[in-house]
Amino acid sequence: MVTPRPRVPYATAMKSYLLAALLVTAAPALAQQSLSTLPPPVVTDPKVAAIRDNALDNDHYAWDVVEGLTTEVGQRLAATDAEARARDWAVRRLKAMGFANVRIEPFEMPVWTRGAESAEIVSPFPQKLVVAALGYSGSTGPAGITGRIAYFDSVDALRAAPDSAVRGKIVFIDHHMMPAQDGSGYGQFGAPRRQGPTIASLKGAIGIVVRSIGTDHHRNPHTGVQYFTDGAKPIPAGALTVPDAEQLVRILKRGQPVVMHLTLVSQKSEGGHSGNVIAEVPGRDPNAPILLLGGHLDSWDQGTGAIDDASGVAIVTAAAKHIMDAGRPQRTIRIVWFGAEEPGGFGGIAYAKAHGTERYGIAGESDFGADRVWRFSSQLMKTDPAAYAQLTAALAPLGITRNDKGEGDGTDVDPTIQAGAPWVSLNQDGTRYFDYHHTPDDTLDKIDPEQLRQNVAAWTTVLAVLSGGIESGPKQPKRR
Amino acid sequence: MVTPRPRVPYATAMKSYLLAALLVTAAPALAQQSLSTLPPPVVTDPKVAAIRDNALDNDHYAWDVVEGLTTEVGQRLAATDAEARARDWAVRRLKAMGFANVRIEPFEMPVWTRGAESAEIVSPFPQKLVVAALGYSGSTGPAGITGRIAYFDSVDALRAAPDSAVRGKIVFIDHHMMPAQDGSGYGQFGAPRRQGPTIASLKGAIGIVVRSIGTDHHRNPHTGVQYFTDGAKPIPAGALTVPDAEQLVRILKRGQPVVMHLTLVSQKSEGGHSGNVIAEVPGRDPNAPILLLGGHLDSWDQGTGAIDDASGVAIVTAAAKHIMDAGRPQRTIRIVWFGAEEPGGFGGIAYAKAHGTERYGIAGESDFGADRVWRFSSQLMKTDPAAYAQLTAALAPLGITRNDKGEGDGTDVDPTIQAGAPWVSLNQDGTRYFDYHHTPDDTLDKIDPEQLRQNVAAWTTVLAVLSGGIESGPKQPKRR
Repeated sequence: MVTPRPRVPYATAMKSYLLAALLVTAAPALAQQSLSTLPPPVVTDPKVAAIRDNALDNDHYAWDVVEGLTTEVGQRLAATDAEARARDWAVRRLKAMGFANVRIEPFEMPVWTRGAESAEIVSPFPQKLVVAALGYSGSTGPAGITGRIAYFDSVDALRAAPDSAVRGKIVFIDHHMMPAQDGSGYGQFGAPRRQGPTIASLKGAIGIVVRSIGTDHHRNPHTGVQYFTDGAKPIPAGALTVPDAEQLVRILKRGQPVVMHLTLVSQKSEGGHSGNVIAEVPGRDPNAPILLLGGHLDSWDQGTGAIDDASGVAIVTAAAKHIMDAGRPQRTIRIVWFGAEEPGGFGGIAYAKAHGTERYGIAGESDFGADRVWRFSSQLMKTDPAAYAQLTAALAPLGITRNDKGEGDGTDVDPTIQAGAPWVSLNQDGTRYFDYHHTPDDTLDKIDPEQLRQNVAAWTTVLAVLSGGIESGPKQPKRR
Repeated sequence: MVTPRPRVPYATAMKSYLLAALLVTAAPALAQQSLSTLPPPVVTDPKVAAIRDNALDNDHYAWDVVEGLTTEVGQRLAATDAEARARDWAVRRLKAMGFANVRIEPFEMPVWTRGAESAEIVSPFPQKLVVAALGYSGSTGPAGITGRIAYFDSVDALRAAPDSAVRGKIVFIDHHMMPAQDGSGYGQFGAPRRQGPTIASLKGAIGIVVRSIGTDHHRNPHTGVQYFTDGAKPIPAGALTVPDAEQLVRILKRGQPVVMHLTLVSQKSEGGHSGNVIAEVPGRDPNAPILLLGGHLDSWDQGTGAIDDASGVAIVTAAAKHIMDAGRPQRTIRIVWFGAEEPGGFGGIAYAKAHGTERYGIAGESDFGADRVWRFSSQLMKTDPAAYAQLTAALAPLGITRNDKGEGDGTDVDPTIQAGAPWVSLNQDGTRYFDYHHTPDDTLDKIDPEQLRQNVAAWTTVLAVLSGGIESGPKQPKRR
């Protein structure tokens, strides 16, 4: 995923029975409430429960997709041939699974690709460090650049520094991001990557390296997108691995000037091609609001994009397939494998431009790994409290708790939500997500099949609850 | 460490009280033994206990050495300039710590260095894999080689295959090593690395890649030494990371021919220079047998050699320093930072050639990471049961158990032990050792300071128990 955009939390205009339920669950120290204050019981439709439990116990669709895509295509950098092969793979797979209206909707975008990269301490203690270029980094050219390191422990320290402390140097920004279940920290501690290069460039730095925006201690650098804004000239911008950043700090603490030779070769050009892959389970009522779920097909280029985001497209596709297997929903389910999310959400923007004004029952995405869903939230709390209560009840057996203060997020569906679609968010456990995020280590072995199935069961439940009813019956004729 | 050489276990000729103690501890289900069958009580000298506990609580010498060496020198590939800088660093540090007779004993050896390396699946699913050359690998030259993969799930499967199944191909050997506390598995599952290249070459392969001899799932290849024997012509030989090896297996299982482009550029030449760094705490009795402890100064070239083996030289040096701080031992303590262990134990062989016939009280080494010592064994069980019992008692408060079936091992001291020195082994917990061993991930952050101190306390205890008595008194005059 790229950075969630901040959204205004919803007002706490809850129906009285929801408030009562909240008090009961959130304040165990209070005196016992009378049963008469509880909301009416909400019981999950046995058919929904059966579809959910079948997905939890038996799903193999998601594993098959994530294993297939990461093995048979591998990395899928946006607007490259690899991403095009991934689109073709997606079309073949979605058709084979029985989805209808499978199609590619192409769009154009700039393309950025990585070349040779290395970092070396020239003095006082000669040694190599491991580095990766950030997206849209400027290029050093093959000869590289050499400069003294200017150290800052935060972006604000860099902002506060006089230009003279930076000019002609290679900036290094440190930070102290720690793991968190909800992934918080990526916003704040990601600033060195996102804003650092622009600030350093405007102050006259010849290059910048940041401590990887990651929570692991492996020699795997975390890449990610950044843009040069405010008229800043692109400069070479890279991420050191966490162990290498710590090594650089130790070397700097010795007090001698530290000189680095940095090589980050990369290329950027206009006119690249990407696209969204779309597939549907047609509803019985073509005019009913659409249930839109997505993930992104592209990945960074060093791993195989297993948790970011082959698992996401696999999870939502498997969920839709479980509904298809159960019968025909009243509402149409639309699955989108968005293109070019990593370099800036190009696929989500292109989709909203084409489809943002359609009528949606819900819009959601899976783009935070493949570990279990532990929490959910939805705009339905406000707009359809009965459906929200049903989701709450149906998701609880999966160990998923309601978050009444949740906010919608998701780079790919956000433009569609901004255009008016109601949102649903299933929060995955992010404790180890930033150990692997945007690194060569984002590979299939990081996916726990059991937690993957729980994700499928969760999204299957959302679709089943909001489907408008699934009509069992003879298998549908093969769709176009 | 390189591969332990098999040794014949010692006969179980134990004194009767040791046998009785063993029965009591090993057979709790037996009827309670009479106290009269227990051996005489063994109580640790309070002075020994105090030195031990001070090391456990307060040691900083080991951390200072491992932090300093890995930061100020970094990687220390045998017979390179980096290893020479490390020797100079060692001499400065050992003198500064107050050791006597600090000196370098040089020796010559061949030198092998790594160049560019990459691996790429050409078909059926184009993608890059992460690879590292093994020590003494042949070179592909910068253009690389291209060949079809011949898969084998073990070295024996390769040995059993007809030459025609291998000739002109790139061999890939898989294995299934799992973590173990005592590190067992490295011997058996390391065969693809050690014997695979020779067997593949003799059968006409143009190259070989093996699944890394490691227990992690990171994109870090595990290098390590191998030799071409039996007249085999050197061929390019590399290790794929575990996730990449698993990816290759998945691709192979699709059933289509798999073609790889492999680039492993490396150089080998004769006449390289290495050396051992030696330092002493002189004993009061120059004729008393020497207590010899070591670790190795060189490392592989991709990490900073923190757990292999900066921690080892740091641990034994800190232990000797704690004895020095406490007073003057009757026996001389000699610390050796061996050179060029990784490419084949050159330092240990050179040391034994020069010093193997001296008289030793004990010889031991620390070369299995920096996690806690959980077990010890010693030839003293047979040759000096009273000392063995004292070691048992004094190490027990550190959570270290006696292993009466233990064997001496250690690449560096083994030649000296073979020449007659009695051995002592402190077994470190190896559960996570092969996650990092010989990878870029062997860096300072993998060392747990608390477990490091326990190691120092354990070796301090061994030295204190076997010192022949430590004479407190006025600080010794500065030694030569």
